[in-house]
Amino acid sequence: MTEVKFKRLALIGIGLIGSSIARAARKHKLADEIVCAARTADSRRVAKELGIVDMAFESPADAVKGADLVIFCTPVGTYEKLAEQVGSSLEKGAIVTDVGSVKNTVIKAIGPHMPDYVDFIPGHPVAGTEKSGPAAGFAELFINRWCILTPNGQASEPAVERLTAFWTAMGSKVEIMDAEHHDLVLAITSHIPHLIAYNIVGTADDLEDVTQSEVIKYSAGGFRDFTRIAASDPTMWRDVFLHNKDAVLEMLGRFTEDLTALQRAIRRDDGETLFNIFSRTRAIRRQIIDAGQETPEPDFGRVHTSDETPKKS
Amino acid sequence: MTEVKFKRLALIGIGLIGSSIARAARKHKLADEIVCAARTADSRRVAKELGIVDMAFESPADAVKGADLVIFCTPVGTYEKLAEQVGSSLEKGAIVTDVGSVKNTVIKAIGPHMPDYVDFIPGHPVAGTEKSGPAAGFAELFINRWCILTPNGQASEPAVERLTAFWTAMGSKVEIMDAEHHDLVLAITSHIPHLIAYNIVGTADDLEDVTQSEVIKYSAGGFRDFTRIAASDPTMWRDVFLHNKDAVLEMLGRFTEDLTALQRAIRRDDGETLFNIFSRTRAIRRQIIDAGQETPEPDFGRVHTSDETPKKS
Ligand SMILES: NC(=O)c1ccc[n+]([C@@H]2O[C@H](COP(=O)([O-])OP(=O)(O)OC[C@H]3O[C@@H](n4cnc5c(N)ncnc54)[C@H](OP(=O)(O)O)[C@@H]3O)[C@@H](O)[C@H]2O)c1
Ligand SMILES: NC(=O)c1ccc[n+]([C@@H]2O[C@H](COP(=O)([O-])OP(=O)(O)OC[C@H]3O[C@@H](n4cnc5c(N)ncnc54)[C@H](OP(=O)(O)O)[C@@H]3O)[C@@H](O)[C@H]2O)c1
Repeated sequence: MTEVKFKRLALIGIGLIGSSIARAARKHKLADEIVCAARTADSRRVAKELGIVDMAFESPADAVKGADLVIFCTPVGTYEKLAEQVGSSLEKGAIVTDVGSVKNTVIKAIGPHMPDYVDFIPGHPVAGTEKSGPAAGFAELFINRWCILTPNGQASEPAVERLTAFWTAMGSKVEIMDAEHHDLVLAITSHIPHLIAYNIVGTADDLEDVTQSEVIKYSAGGFRDFTRIAASDPTMWRDVFLHNKDAVLEMLGRFTEDLTALQRAIRRDDGETLFNIFSRTRAIRRQIIDAGQETPEPDFGRVHTSDETPKKS
Repeated sequence: MTEVKFKRLALIGIGLIGSSIARAARKHKLADEIVCAARTADSRRVAKELGIVDMAFESPADAVKGADLVIFCTPVGTYEKLAEQVGSSLEKGAIVTDVGSVKNTVIKAIGPHMPDYVDFIPGHPVAGTEKSGPAAGFAELFINRWCILTPNGQASEPAVERLTAFWTAMGSKVEIMDAEHHDLVLAITSHIPHLIAYNIVGTADDLEDVTQSEVIKYSAGGFRDFTRIAASDPTMWRDVFLHNKDAVLEMLGRFTEDLTALQRAIRRDDGETLFNIFSRTRAIRRQIIDAGQETPEPDFGRVHTSDETPKKS
């Protein structure tokens, strides 16, 4: 039996993902003690007030002292400097991992700063919402979601098993993958969707012949679906695109090519081509629902009642 | 006071939208009798079994006889032929309207077949889900959603007021607009979102270096959001693109231009441009939520619990 429980879990960054790990680890008793490092006093205060960490440090090096599990939960652009800062403070035998949405550059950013006596295993839970910060997390975030680990030779087999057991205990399904392949897969399943969502919201915002008030009023025609992921954290997503440039540009090229074909079909009144393309796509949603990765409810299960009155916040 | 109640409401087509109108009209007692025409015996049977119509006809001309409110609820590509079929069977003084997602070509398709003694008012409820057919409708669909009317001079003022009262009674907010402007607004808030959703699902389906099983497993990274609207009815959407060609191509041109700028920023490692674009878009979602057009819940209020187990259907 792989021992799942850790003595001290240190989270570097306590936003949506870090705080969700803290909540899930506490709920499932996966660590005796949970500590975090956060940049702002505000996040440290909120994390302590919510009772999701035992201690919150300003210095990442202080946070990792005595920790047998360390998880980087900050935007990937911060990793290199943070790894440099914590490297020499890490405990012998500690497992070091991360949750970053890209993996190839993460290995290059963190790997070189890891002492020989720790096990470093890059990771990525494919789960999230459009919200940020310590208050946005919840213990159920990882349930039924995949967590991808991309070990690169800086970890022992038992360490990988132990980290797998940790994610499994939080409800995740774990997959081992090559970092380069991870970045290609996530480019199409996550990064390009975010890019085109940000893009259409930007396009709509820039129009002169359609007012912003019209865009808002008639957003239920489909547009509002895109505003959800376009409301995600700009720093996190800037870093994702800067750190997964090649795979994103590759997938974007294919997306644009296909869009040009659709454009041509519209211009030529080619209804048959349109119909054929539009007919293929229902099956994929069906499979995603069957795989437990999406709700079977129409309209994402959005509430449709008279209770859905305008709310001010 | 405008009289809202009609003697006989005839729905031509009884899919998602037609059957939602039937349910809402019945619930709010807006018609003494509700009848429909549907193409297939199956839809007619289901509509009757669900008790949402009093009679279901195969012939649209039979359905409109004696009706003082007639609503076209079929794909817009079918309108011209249907209008021709029902024209001479319409009652004197009847109000004729539709729910089509485009308006300019609808006026050209239906308008010429309307006798002088009816009031014709093109309409479009901006509300829907990705589901189709008579079983998919629900009475609450139109609550808090906008319904756009684009009168083109073929209706009297009182008739427009009465139709406005009808939609208001079903929970909608009504806006009067020029048909051409409608088509431009909906191109960006509905048609382009559908086009790019269909497109990315198609692109993902065509990859060789990423398997379909990987696309499905890791869809929670953002991709799954797009599969919802890409699961919409292919016939309806083919017709929308064929019938709103100019506005769609115009908006698509702007979308592509903006996407090229984002692509260039990624290629040049221009983090500042990316950050600035990604920072503008949160505010729009906030306004859509404040306007009551979107749920304030994170992740559309999707359920995140251990109950969310794979379902077979
Ligand atoms: N959001 C998602 O859907 C999702 C999904 C999977 C993976 N991820 C990955 O998870 C990581 C965190 O994302 P998140 O959504 O949890 O972000 P978040 O809610 O914005 O939280 C980020 C955390 O990192 C800290 N931080 C930011 N910049 C820092 C710096 N320069 N030095 C030290 N700490 C810093 C923040 O501290 P302050 O609050 O004090 O500023 C905050 O605690 C990212 O690498 C992302 O790629 C995100
Ligand atoms: N879905 C949305 O989100 C949405 C939103 C706003 C407006 N609209 C507009 O509403 C209209 C209907 O859409 P919907 O979603 O309700 O579609 P739907 O669920 O697919 O239903 C279409 C209905 O039209 C009938 N029909 C189809 N082709 C026909 C033909 N050639 N002759 C006679 N009847 C025919 C169908 O009969 P059978 O079932 O017997 O084939 C069915 O009753 C479209 O014009 C669309 O643009 C849709």
